[in-house]
Amino acid sequence: MRATVLHGAHDVRLEDVPDPAIAEPADAVVRVTAAAVCGSDLWTYRGTAPLASPTRFGHEFIGVVEETGRDVHTLRRGEFVLAPFNASDNTCPNCLNGMHTSCDRIAHWGVPGPDGHVMDAGQGERVRVPMADGTLVGTPGHPAPEHIPSLLALCDVMSTGRHATRIARVAPGETVVVSGDGAVGLCTVLAARRAGADRIILMSRHPARQSLGREFGATDIVASRGEEGIATVRDLLRGRLADAAMECVGTDQSLAQATGTVRPGGRVACVGLPLGVTSYPYHRTFSAGLTVTAGSAPARAYLPELLADVWSGSIVPGRVFDREYPLERVADAYAAMNERTVLKALLRP
Amino acid sequence: MRATVLHGAHDVRLEDVPDPAIAEPADAVVRVTAAAVCGSDLWTYRGTAPLASPTRFGHEFIGVVEETGRDVHTLRRGEFVLAPFNASDNTCPNCLNGMHTSCDRIAHWGVPGPDGHVMDAGQGERVRVPMADGTLVGTPGHPAPEHIPSLLALCDVMSTGRHATRIARVAPGETVVVSGDGAVGLCTVLAARRAGADRIILMSRHPARQSLGREFGATDIVASRGEEGIATVRDLLRGRLADAAMECVGTDQSLAQATGTVRPGGRVACVGLPLGVTSYPYHRTFSAGLTVTAGSAPARAYLPELLADVWSGSIVPGRVFDREYPLERVADAYAAMNERTVLKALLRP
Repeated sequence: MRATVLHGAHDVRLEDVPDPAIAEPADAVVRVTAAAVCGSDLWTYRGTAPLASPTRFGHEFIGVVEETGRDVHTLRRGEFVLAPFNASDNTCPNCLNGMHTSCDRIAHWGVPGPDGHVMDAGQGERVRVPMADGTLVGTPGHPAPEHIPSLLALCDVMSTGRHATRIARVAPGETVVVSGDGAVGLCTVLAARRAGADRIILMSRHPARQSLGREFGATDIVASRGEEGIATVRDLLRGRLADAAMECVGTDQSLAQATGTVRPGGRVACVGLPLGVTSYPYHRTFSAGLTVTAGSAPARAYLPELLADVWSGSIVPGRVFDREYPLERVADAYAAMNERTVLKALLRP
Repeated sequence: MRATVLHGAHDVRLEDVPDPAIAEPADAVVRVTAAAVCGSDLWTYRGTAPLASPTRFGHEFIGVVEETGRDVHTLRRGEFVLAPFNASDNTCPNCLNGMHTSCDRIAHWGVPGPDGHVMDAGQGERVRVPMADGTLVGTPGHPAPEHIPSLLALCDVMSTGRHATRIARVAPGETVVVSGDGAVGLCTVLAARRAGADRIILMSRHPARQSLGREFGATDIVASRGEEGIATVRDLLRGRLADAAMECVGTDQSLAQATGTVRPGGRVACVGLPLGVTSYPYHRTFSAGLTVTAGSAPARAYLPELLADVWSGSIVPGRVFDREYPLERVADAYAAMNERTVLKALLRP
């Protein structure tokens, strides 16, 4: 079959790789219906997070179960499934605490897993999924075509937005700030509206993203950054600050901005993969008595509730996909996202 | 009157200073019954936090109201009162959020306040207290002598311990770690027991403090530190980690230890004044999905509930005072605490 392999900075190739097959009794094999390129993939594409060797990429995919191992009990051949951005057993103490991102047997797409096999990744035609009962979530039936982008968004970006608002404990009527206007930032706006926030300030300087942000529920847009951005938020709030901020970038600047826009005793959620973080503003955190929760989303934990909302049409996070590519053109998809001419690319194998 | 003035490192003097008097209508003047030396005072005593000029010291005191301004309505002359470690109006948005440490009109003992007057401090005979209705909490009557140390402990260290367990969201039945065996760490152990923690691991290598820690409720003592200390906690918990940790020191080492002893998705409370913090372990926080709440305790918010517990005898935090000195010997009190021959000194003017 064909799958995406990154060889290094700006070197994305679609290659022939071995067909996946059931290797362990808990495995399933999934034929990919749609996959996404993630903003975090660009860290490697740009050379910021270099690779030791060519690596299969893609951690957001949805598709149809083709085969199941003999220990798979909750999924059937032909069932449509969503995959979270890491595999987990859903039974260990960490999973039971809702921390699937710290599963005792966690496995990441594209790299060697604890079962000794190198994992397939999502930007390809098919994927062997370990711990399939724990990892995959089936949909109520085969989805309508218009639901495909929104279901794909649940694998990572919308689950991450939901996580950001949960760990920031966003409550109805509150004022919140979202730092970052990528797909995660925009989904966080949508999640904040879903959580009942009254005022949602999106930090964004990109017109198309501002527009989608408003559509998702942003009530205010702040284009300035850093100290100036913080001062603008303070002016908007008549001298006070927000109840909570959600940091969706993963840089020193973004962390400083997020912690700076929150009132004493407020909450900060940090979901931006911290590849650009060299120092954390601890003294601001201490002096303002902030609560900071950081980390990747346990997407598996949120899939059932978000799936219900997509299925009913009450949220349409798939609006973040502004361009589709056939899998053959995966290199173009990476390049376009890197140049910020595309917000988020959807790949069709 | 006489009051304590720090002139620099290892230079503590009892000096004659002007008698306090009502300067603003919301002021009260309090005659000090007992005052404490705080572990944080030692940062200045040791020269770690140098002074620009000689400064009055002491932010923990209890006593009797001698005079009130015409706008003081909740306190009467002759009433026994507790003072939190900063003055606050108890009416601004931050105070109403429970963040008295970020009061819009906050004033700190010993330094110039927002009303333009230099504040008296607690290690003296009397204190002018601004915003007296907002700052002071009256007791149900004049306390029995045996309650004096415990009431004094509420001004800072026991309120801080209570705050640590609240922001760490310690729940009944949980396993927690306390980093730091000073008066705050020990009061945090007491607060964790009060909050219903099942297992309380105190990181301490000092025999007398270990003993008081056990008396306050510690179920396990770990004398090793750093990576070795974390490994010991993991062994005690049969390969897993604690639900929450409370950091009561304020150094890089202590923050690393606290964040290292907590399970994925766990909580860390950081109440140690961060004078020894140069970097914060953000990547550990992100990778384990931790929630970290930092900051000084809004002691004013906790005084009523803790006062009730001391008055009823259900907690005796005053056990942290292991030595009393007359005010004349304040320099000896600082020296003894600095040499760690005394845990916490109580001063009697």
